[in-house]
Amino acid sequence: MSILGIDIGGSGVKAGVVTPEGEILFHAKVDLAKGQSKETAPILEAATLAGREALEGAAGKGVRATAVGIGVPGVVDAKNGVVVASANLEGLRGVPLAGILGDALRLGARLANDANAAALGEAKYGGHGKLDSLVLFTLGTGIGGGIILDGKIVTGHNGYAGELGHMRIEMSNPRPCGCKRWGCLEAYAGNLSIVKRTHEALAEDWKKTSCLHVPAQDPEFNAAQVFDAAKLGDPLSIRLVNETALALAVGAVNMIHALNPQLVLFAGGMTCTGDWFLELIRSLAKDLPIEGVDIHGRIGFAKLGEKAGVVGAAAVGAG
Amino acid sequence: MSILGIDIGGSGVKAGVVTPEGEILFHAKVDLAKGQSKETAPILEAATLAGREALEGAAGKGVRATAVGIGVPGVVDAKNGVVVASANLEGLRGVPLAGILGDALRLGARLANDANAAALGEAKYGGHGKLDSLVLFTLGTGIGGGIILDGKIVTGHNGYAGELGHMRIEMSNPRPCGCKRWGCLEAYAGNLSIVKRTHEALAEDWKKTSCLHVPAQDPEFNAAQVFDAAKLGDPLSIRLVNETALALAVGAVNMIHALNPQLVLFAGGMTCTGDWFLELIRSLAKDLPIEGVDIHGRIGFAKLGEKAGVVGAAAVGAG
Repeated sequence: MSILGIDIGGSGVKAGVVTPEGEILFHAKVDLAKGQSKETAPILEAATLAGREALEGAAGKGVRATAVGIGVPGVVDAKNGVVVASANLEGLRGVPLAGILGDALRLGARLANDANAAALGEAKYGGHGKLDSLVLFTLGTGIGGGIILDGKIVTGHNGYAGELGHMRIEMSNPRPCGCKRWGCLEAYAGNLSIVKRTHEALAEDWKKTSCLHVPAQDPEFNAAQVFDAAKLGDPLSIRLVNETALALAVGAVNMIHALNPQLVLFAGGMTCTGDWFLELIRSLAKDLPIEGVDIHGRIGFAKLGEKAGVVGAAAVGAG
Repeated sequence: MSILGIDIGGSGVKAGVVTPEGEILFHAKVDLAKGQSKETAPILEAATLAGREALEGAAGKGVRATAVGIGVPGVVDAKNGVVVASANLEGLRGVPLAGILGDALRLGARLANDANAAALGEAKYGGHGKLDSLVLFTLGTGIGGGIILDGKIVTGHNGYAGELGHMRIEMSNPRPCGCKRWGCLEAYAGNLSIVKRTHEALAEDWKKTSCLHVPAQDPEFNAAQVFDAAKLGDPLSIRLVNETALALAVGAVNMIHALNPQLVLFAGGMTCTGDWFLELIRSLAKDLPIEGVDIHGRIGFAKLGEKAGVVGAAAVGAG
């Protein structure tokens, strides 16, 4: 059975019909104009349009989707298919999205938080073998996550489980986090924090020794440039990448101690840096677990990449 | 249906028949002599003896147990009822305990880690209302834990889920932990760490200002004395108790962000200190969650106290 996946983000909607093997048969994309993410109607229209396009495209190939799954950033009441709150899609607050899109597309619909959906997609279609339990960290500007146990998303009592970026990992000298709290994983390993830490280090005494001082003046300067410079041997960049990897290793091993999942995976742009970064995280993680806890082969990178949004949503729709 | 609960520890076995309301009808206790915890036969004999005594005692009151649940410290293969490893009960390593005790007592038997069992007991019989999800921290010499989701124990892929004491909460200046790693929650909030931190502080410059310098010379000196001195206004003790409470608050909120359970509870000797310590943890926790995460009423103390071992084991037996 093929499933329609609809991935709604602040800048637009992606939709696709996904085969039981996790292949996207037909892909549709509808952008949201600036400001539209604050209104309900344009989001619903964009999602319906993208969904219909994907359904029609797949029908043209002779494939009918039997259900729809929807992923949105924010807190979700999965049971009732309602968006509780979404910072990037204010127009969806309180909207019974599963019911509305299900009716419009004439398909049974299920709703999940997008990072939770990505975790389920990775568990089902990521090619990691039979995977019943998984902790996924989504690395972007900030850090989110999703937890799969017994093959199902852990939504939590109020629907916000998986806020792994705000696990506090530093007490005595905590960095401020975007959430206005202190010492969160995100404050050490989020893309934005890497940029901030670069600027801070350059303002201190790294300016003379790091090649980053020129690119860092560009307002578009980003974490990927720090990773590139680290590969070229820039000492500040190497330090920053090492700190990032250690923070991620601690986050991963904390979740391994708590939940003992089959796998912990990292997803997002940072995982495009290549295997050397994964090996760095793994080598730092090796010394962290207590005796008897074997983490060999337990930490990896997600494999769905750009497809994670749509494929994850479809995994939710598959139920 | 009443259930027999058997709680096996390094110093002995406790057993009791537990009613559906969580009351222990009859209680039996068999001590292990020194060194016996390293041998298989004496542990099995003690457990069988305690179990039979409890069954007979309950039968004398007209109550028959319909199943048996067993709690042991260590890593457990719950599915097959086998003890994988146990530091305090080396004699049980590799022993198919559920099968052996079930046969001996002629009851269907289930096995769980003792902290996991305590969490299930607290969820079922702790008087917290309908409780489907719970994170329990067990505070003792070290710190363990148990996680309940959807009314069931999260055992993890290899049976060691719930190692909450080794969640790392400090990166830049980590204390050494009993597990030989660094910065674990246990290194800040375990009873042993409180004693160690007291000695360290007294060796620095607190000797003149803290009343602890006399009792701390006693080899029996323990964390409870630090809590007592804090209540009397001793400044060092207040600092140590505050640090302990903050570490516990961070541990609790980290798990709330990750799993969004209905409740996070603390169990163990430290919770006998009274409501002021719980209120201290709560007040420190209040500032830790991200926006939208309401932790009011979410953090508390366990209620089963001394009964947790036997009642938790019975909860496991009830399945």
